[in-house]
Amino acid sequence: MPTATATQKFDLKKAIAELEKLGADLYHKDFLLTWEKNDAEIHSVLKIAEILKEMHAQNIDASMFRTGLAVSNFRDNSTRTRFSFSSACNLLGLAVQDLDEGKSQIAHGETVRETANMISFLTEAVGIRDDMFIGKGHTYMKEVAEALDDGYKQGVLNQRPAVVNLQCDLDHPTQSMSDLLFIKNHFGGFENLKGKKIAMTWAYSPSYGKPLSVPQGVITLMSRFGMEVELAYPEGYDLLPDTIEVAKEHAKKSGGSFKVSNSMESAFKNADIVYPKSWAPFKVMEKRTALLEGGDQAGLKTLEKECLENNAKFKSWECDEAKMKLTKGGKATYMHCLPADITDVSCKAGEVSANVFEKARIGTYKEAGYKPFVIAAMIAACTKKNPPRLLAELVKAGGKRVL
Amino acid sequence: MPTATATQKFDLKKAIAELEKLGADLYHKDFLLTWEKNDAEIHSVLKIAEILKEMHAQNIDASMFRTGLAVSNFRDNSTRTRFSFSSACNLLGLAVQDLDEGKSQIAHGETVRETANMISFLTEAVGIRDDMFIGKGHTYMKEVAEALDDGYKQGVLNQRPAVVNLQCDLDHPTQSMSDLLFIKNHFGGFENLKGKKIAMTWAYSPSYGKPLSVPQGVITLMSRFGMEVELAYPEGYDLLPDTIEVAKEHAKKSGGSFKVSNSMESAFKNADIVYPKSWAPFKVMEKRTALLEGGDQAGLKTLEKECLENNAKFKSWECDEAKMKLTKGGKATYMHCLPADITDVSCKAGEVSANVFEKARIGTYKEAGYKPFVIAAMIAACTKKNPPRLLAELVKAGGKRVL
Amino acid sequence: MPTATATQKFDLKKAIAELEKLGADLYHKDFLLTWEKNDAEIHSVLKIAEILKEMHAQNIDASMFRTGLAVSNFRDNSTRTRFSFSSACNLLGLAVQDLDEGKSQIAHGETVRETANMISFLTEAVGIRDDMFIGKGHTYMKEVAEALDDGYKQGVLNQRPAVVNLQCDLDHPTQSMSDLLFIKNHFGGFENLKGKKIAMTWAYSPSYGKPLSVPQGVITLMSRFGMEVELAYPEGYDLLPDTIEVAKEHAKKSGGSFKVSNSMESAFKNADIVYPKSWAPFKVMEKRTALLEGGDQAGLKTLEKECLENNAKFKSWECDEAKMKLTKGGKATYMHCLPADITDVSCKAGEVSANVFEKARIGTYKEAGYKPFVIAAMIAACTKKNPPRLLAELVKAGGKRVL
Repeated sequence: MPTATATQKFDLKKAIAELEKLGADLYHKDFLLTWEKNDAEIHSVLKIAEILKEMHAQNIDASMFRTGLAVSNFRDNSTRTRFSFSSACNLLGLAVQDLDEGKSQIAHGETVRETANMISFLTEAVGIRDDMFIGKGHTYMKEVAEALDDGYKQGVLNQRPAVVNLQCDLDHPTQSMSDLLFIKNHFGGFENLKGKKIAMTWAYSPSYGKPLSVPQGVITLMSRFGMEVELAYPEGYDLLPDTIEVAKEHAKKSGGSFKVSNSMESAFKNADIVYPKSWAPFKVMEKRTALLEGGDQAGLKTLEKECLENNAKFKSWECDEAKMKLTKGGKATYMHCLPADITDVSCKAGEVSANVFEKARIGTYKEAGYKPFVIAAMIAACTKKNPPRLLAELVKAGGKRVL
Repeated sequence: MPTATATQKFDLKKAIAELEKLGADLYHKDFLLTWEKNDAEIHSVLKIAEILKEMHAQNIDASMFRTGLAVSNFRDNSTRTRFSFSSACNLLGLAVQDLDEGKSQIAHGETVRETANMISFLTEAVGIRDDMFIGKGHTYMKEVAEALDDGYKQGVLNQRPAVVNLQCDLDHPTQSMSDLLFIKNHFGGFENLKGKKIAMTWAYSPSYGKPLSVPQGVITLMSRFGMEVELAYPEGYDLLPDTIEVAKEHAKKSGGSFKVSNSMESAFKNADIVYPKSWAPFKVMEKRTALLEGGDQAGLKTLEKECLENNAKFKSWECDEAKMKLTKGGKATYMHCLPADITDVSCKAGEVSANVFEKARIGTYKEAGYKPFVIAAMIAACTKKNPPRLLAELVKAGGKRVL
Repeated sequence: MPTATATQKFDLKKAIAELEKLGADLYHKDFLLTWEKNDAEIHSVLKIAEILKEMHAQNIDASMFRTGLAVSNFRDNSTRTRFSFSSACNLLGLAVQDLDEGKSQIAHGETVRETANMISFLTEAVGIRDDMFIGKGHTYMKEVAEALDDGYKQGVLNQRPAVVNLQCDLDHPTQSMSDLLFIKNHFGGFENLKGKKIAMTWAYSPSYGKPLSVPQGVITLMSRFGMEVELAYPEGYDLLPDTIEVAKEHAKKSGGSFKVSNSMESAFKNADIVYPKSWAPFKVMEKRTALLEGGDQAGLKTLEKECLENNAKFKSWECDEAKMKLTKGGKATYMHCLPADITDVSCKAGEVSANVFEKARIGTYKEAGYKPFVIAAMIAACTKKNPPRLLAELVKAGGKRVL
């Protein structure tokens, strides 16, 4: 089953040796925010992801669990992330069990720490998506992780399941790490990302309340790789201030730069990469969180109306051919976490024009294609004492994934 | 674990040799409509199904995937087909992930081709049931299949997942193929089906809007095997005209016959097999599709009322003992895709009388019992380069499915 | 992966030898009610559960099915039981398929016996939770079991799936057996349970309609082990009379005692173990069943109001520190099936005070931790001809569950 992804002559043995050299140790840890991880840890997960992707392409069985559950806890709708998580767990040999809070007794006054243990007696990984409420998602994930630490320490659990952030209010690490692998391979290595300009920009969308975690994840991660990161959005569409600070620090350390502007054109100018994507202003998300918690339906409707009206002032923030011409050589790499709001395709006016999207479409699919392997890598890194040795054994054994 | 199904002394080696002789090649194809497949392809899938069923009966492990996802996409309710698909995928080693469009972002303007790729990075098979809308189900499946072709060709996907039609507006191949295997074994071989009369007839039901795919599937498939097929329904309860044409052609080629009448009695007369089953007229289904698309609830209610009133004129279209007496020797084989509307059991007046159904009950269960293996066979045929060799290896290895 | 649960130096070989000595035969039977099983059968399931738990702790692969489905049929909400069942099935190598009656055609007049067969062609175990309707749950499970017997005998099914009661109107065997294993290990063996006093008491809860199966399961099971069982509840909160009779008989045979009182204090006095838990009176549950069947929403509201008002008279039935002081040495073992209604934590006034619960919390988690293994043991006992030999083979093979 030789495939396009295998054509780059990825050397599995070499990659595993490089992984070992990184010497990262994520055993019994979680993957919640990229900026909590050091460079070796980030590179380690990326390397494992690439190794697993290559093993899949070469039809080598990567299942490292004979049995074991993976819990998926989606507090927001999702197709792609759901499938990415399922795919990742299945690749490693885990069976997914949804924690569907509608069907459960969680509403009956259970504490998070109790539920975390109850679902984990034979569980190896817990994937959580909780991005709707500012100040809540990451906090919830930490609570789950602490409950699991305690359960493991007290002998309630035979193993410590890894918690993987499938999108929270702060970060979307499985997305940003997939994005990073895509451009790393597109430009031929991490070295080649240095000095490349990436425009992470707001874009117009006829919908409202889109989470901030994608732009926050992108600016905080890309700034670690010596890139020139320009964040652009219409006045008022601020991200969480803390993440701006993280991006600034990262840029300083990595020898790159980080700049905020209020002009899509400025950001696109000479950009090597553009990532135009809608989001709601941080302050609107805060208000919305309060209204949602208070069950204030009227307030929510009013807020939505205001926001959509405000969004509509910025319909010009569309990634169209004219703006693409401003980029380096007129041919910047277009990125999107998908689904994009495509003008005249999925809506009347959206984030990107149909012709720009169509040219980039297969690229965005490939960008998404890294995600299952990034998730699998996070689980492997956090549940295995010695991932390089285990991967080397699996590659040596050479079991066929598909007969 | 010797079982009743194993008592016919099915010879696995012989069957695999026969499969090889057929020389069919369905690799990287889909299974959408039986009439798109040539005889060798049909026989190949049937043969693989029987081999897998016998392997199961003999407790031989048939898992040919160590890991891999199978996507189930049910756009209509289903118990049996859902379980058949799950069973089939599990038998082959695949894990099922539901694509539940309610929980997904599909409503947010995603295109079919994008979703098809997003769910398929580690997917080996996609099972779709979409039978509610005339002119839609098959079209949707083709769109998915084309998107997967493109994704595979462009290097987005490492493998080309097989699309399996679990019921569309045109055909219900997993049902009709199971039906066929049931009668083939009941009568002792395909040769013995020649000249046998099968009555595919409408029957009264107190419900409305039942899909046409079962009768369409049955007349188009059985007419390929030299059978005398009589389709009977009350005036107005027409099937899709194209499928009538297919049945006519098939009958001509196979040396059988195909006849349409408006009399249940005529159809039952001297029949070896009867398949009495309710459906909605093709034109009603067309109207209903338009009303559903327009969200015209009032129109739908009116249509339902009209149809139920019309149905009620044909309460005499019940498969009862008197009508069974008209069949060959008074003991035709009764078939049904289940669940049947049984008079005095599941409704006041229905498709079949309680005593006729009760006599045939175990037979209908066995008829249904072929379906998981037919689905598994379709997946195996479409994802494996050389199914006979692979099956021979599995049989030779003789791994126990259950310890 | 050495863990707390492995520290008791559980000897796998010795345990398997003991299992063999028990000579129980549950092959092709079901596990519906503990009081239908003889002592050897009960001990056999408990022993298998402990063996599987230890194998998990020692990272020994216990999968005894290469492929096969397990059907979960939850007619009531559940987190823990759902995860316990999933975990159990996964441990043995089975894939879970939910029978979600909302999504299925069961409402369309299918008979239980038909559905039971339709979902079982490749199924090895069926777990059912049906505890809402007095006189229904157990009856339904028996119907399913009989349909499977028939399907197997008639050659519809290649195997006879085991039916496991995940909670019915009469019993909750997976809970009571887990409770039993917890106290057996807590007190150092079954011998040490003799003469121990257990107080199974009603407790106040602000909710209504909690099932009776937990107290019924506990008094009928614990009375078999020579324990002094005291059941206490406010007047009117009777359990199903038949289960009281069973407990009386068991106590007589086992040399223990069984007493009913209307005082929490009396029950707690000198108790070694307390199990304070709310339930609805048997007669209320009967009324409720009738109202639910009749769809009498107004009647249900009235009944709920009455019951909550009646409950409120017994707010003093809380397990607090004062009552705990009445127990043996003031330090009885607290048990709960979870989730508990904890005063000031999950409600204003509940079954247990926050400080009592917090001290016992980790214990209750461990109590719950037996359940996946008890369920797995029931499935293994009912589907394997010779469980001790099979377990011995698995232990000898020593396959790693997790690489």
